[in-house]
Amino acid sequence: MLVRVHVTLKAGVLDPQGAAVRHSLNSLGFEGVEKVRQGKVIELALSETDPAKAEAQAGEMCEKLLANTVIENYKIEIV
Amino acid sequence: MLVRVHVTLKAGVLDPQGAAVRHSLNSLGFEGVEKVRQGKVIELALSETDPAKAEAQAGEMCEKLLANTVIENYKIEIV
Repeated sequence: MLVRVHVTLKAGVLDPQGAAVRHSLNSLGFEGVEKVRQGKVIELALSETDPAKAEAQAGEMCEKLLANTVIENYKIEIV
Repeated sequence: MLVRVHVTLKAGVLDPQGAAVRHSLNSLGFEGVEKVRQGKVIELALSETDPAKAEAQAGEMCEKLLANTVIENYKIEIV
């Protein structure tokens, strides 16, 4: 079962990587870029075949390793 | 207009970051993790209000900066 986890910074948390991308886009001549935020996607191939169980397992992985829940949100999507 | 860009490694390209995550998940006792691939998501707030134009602009940004098209695929989503 393929599970996709989206990890994004919480609103209000500084995102230097996003700021750098925005700056580079401006330097390249792209206008009208108001804000850039960068996050990550983690695709997990799990041997679990039950969607509910796979989602629960992925949630536990996020809490323990994939996301820093102090500053990041995560969203789990079963593909 | 909010545009979300997903950048993922092409199939066959080595993903050491994904391999490290997989290894860590195994060390933490998660079983049945067959494969892990890691990519990034970039959220762009553009001043452009026409969805087609915003998508075209994001495509150009991907080609020029956001993705390394030799080893990465990108997917543009208008939110």
